[in-house]
Amino acid sequence: MNHQNPSQLIKDIGEQGLLQRVQRFCPQAIIGDDAAVLALQTDRSLVITTDMLVDGVHFSDVTTSPADVGWRAAAANLSDLAAMGATPVAITVALGLPGDTPVDWVEELYCGMTECLGQHCTEIVGGDICRSSIRTVAITAFGQVEPQRTIRRHGAKPGDAIVVTGVHGASRAGLELLLHREFGHSLNDRDRDALIRVHQRPQPRFDVLPILWEIVDSSISIVGMDSSDGLADAVLQICRASKVGAKLDRSLLPVPPVLTQIVSSERSIEWTLYGGEDFELVLCLPRELAEKFVKRLGNSAAIVGTITPEPNVWLTDTNHTNPDRMLSIDRGFQHFDS
Amino acid sequence: MNHQNPSQLIKDIGEQGLLQRVQRFCPQAIIGDDAAVLALQTDRSLVITTDMLVDGVHFSDVTTSPADVGWRAAAANLSDLAAMGATPVAITVALGLPGDTPVDWVEELYCGMTECLGQHCTEIVGGDICRSSIRTVAITAFGQVEPQRTIRRHGAKPGDAIVVTGVHGASRAGLELLLHREFGHSLNDRDRDALIRVHQRPQPRFDVLPILWEIVDSSISIVGMDSSDGLADAVLQICRASKVGAKLDRSLLPVPPVLTQIVSSERSIEWTLYGGEDFELVLCLPRELAEKFVKRLGNSAAIVGTITPEPNVWLTDTNHTNPDRMLSIDRGFQHFDS
Repeated sequence: MNHQNPSQLIKDIGEQGLLQRVQRFCPQAIIGDDAAVLALQTDRSLVITTDMLVDGVHFSDVTTSPADVGWRAAAANLSDLAAMGATPVAITVALGLPGDTPVDWVEELYCGMTECLGQHCTEIVGGDICRSSIRTVAITAFGQVEPQRTIRRHGAKPGDAIVVTGVHGASRAGLELLLHREFGHSLNDRDRDALIRVHQRPQPRFDVLPILWEIVDSSISIVGMDSSDGLADAVLQICRASKVGAKLDRSLLPVPPVLTQIVSSERSIEWTLYGGEDFELVLCLPRELAEKFVKRLGNSAAIVGTITPEPNVWLTDTNHTNPDRMLSIDRGFQHFDS
Repeated sequence: MNHQNPSQLIKDIGEQGLLQRVQRFCPQAIIGDDAAVLALQTDRSLVITTDMLVDGVHFSDVTTSPADVGWRAAAANLSDLAAMGATPVAITVALGLPGDTPVDWVEELYCGMTECLGQHCTEIVGGDICRSSIRTVAITAFGQVEPQRTIRRHGAKPGDAIVVTGVHGASRAGLELLLHREFGHSLNDRDRDALIRVHQRPQPRFDVLPILWEIVDSSISIVGMDSSDGLADAVLQICRASKVGAKLDRSLLPVPPVLTQIVSSERSIEWTLYGGEDFELVLCLPRELAEKFVKRLGNSAAIVGTITPEPNVWLTDTNHTNPDRMLSIDRGFQHFDS
């Protein structure tokens, strides 16, 4: 990074100058042609996903350093690959940037991306940089999957257990801590930092895939997706694709224990269901396999409910303290309202 | 398209409504998971390229209908695949859109893209739609190439003939006609429309690849790229990557004949060299093969010069009417000056 000249702007070094800076983050063999060429394993299918992030909508200098923007952008795309059961191969990065963007901002963005990608042996193999009035990052990620191990959203069956990895709502709490300094003052530093870190440095769950393959025979189609848009959204999307419903048990939801220290129990349930950006996996498995999977993962996964034949998704309370609630797919979505 | 309600805006139908509209342009089997899964031919390498286009920088309602924006965006990406010798497989499309974007604009954009892609048996297999303050289109295209037939920029050898397909400068002239109504008033309607069409509906040159493979043995590495950033830029990039130079002969440049009716000879040379967006191929081949290739393509390709050992690129004049000019890589680039 160019800390000798922290105020240098990209309009000072031009497109070619900036390209030279960012090409240092790419494997040298791949640079200099109209397109990147990659050899793939022959017995795998190609898996492709793409995301666009926009300044002020998906990230902000208030809550997110450029390195964290880069990490999160890479992690979100890799998480979509993990959600398909795929191993990541490479990503491309297209950037739209105003001329007054500091060169440092771009280099730190690339640092964050390559730091995340490096943990998964993945490289940036192509890109584009162009002028725009707003900072925009478009990433496309490629992975490979054995066809019989592809995880899909459709195919969940009544009686399947719904398993989720990790906790949910921590990223939402981390965001709140970044947005409102006065929030969560009762937390100790370690818990505060841990929640913020979940928001800034999410981890795509490639680590659970080998464990899944150990337990689940390749003759069984695994159903699932990631929880990038929230746990409720994941369950609703799977149910919609599978033409089934679900019952989630309120007492089994993976609420981060620390949440109840800082928000009401109702709010902690809401963040767990709808907070989003936890990038965990939500899977539907025959109950016996689900139990094996949870056991194998120790305390870092949980069965939260069951697939039902009738098509609605209910949040139930086995203690009957709270009335049953029907969950709706409209709850967690962005709208084009500006 | 929704002509019953032409003023409907995307903020009226929301992200989910818009997704449903654009998913009609994608193969149904591919919709609904976190990522698209594609089977590839096993003996090919994967070729990947990405581009971002921004309203006001790369397109404008003044010169380009949404269908043409879509066509051009798809064509530019496919041209990068053709420039590598690859066959296209699929693209992904990420859109950033203000809420007041008409739904029609988005649907017509997709119409233009799929119209271009349909000519090359290519489909849209994934995408993302998000809110942005400026219309932004990011496309990533995938192709496949037989490894020994990959066209690269490096490897041009002194003595190689420089061959270009098509004419150059027509797209630049078409843009001028769209920008300035008073320009080119001496043109007949047919010539005017033809120049505008070259600008609005460029054709990636996949058609010349089979002819190239017919003539060139797979033991010979073919060197080349497309001329999306101009003919001069392509020659300069190839020379830089190959550590050689070139002599281009002014009298051999593929100037569209009609250009001399509307601009000075000096301007027509400039547009031919630097106009850009003609999306033709610029190849370096042993002279004998280059001559065969040109003959086989009839009048739609030309040898315009020769690769030289010393590293500069010169525009020479065999008639000695004009002094020799050294071409520079800085001439044709965008800068981040706003």
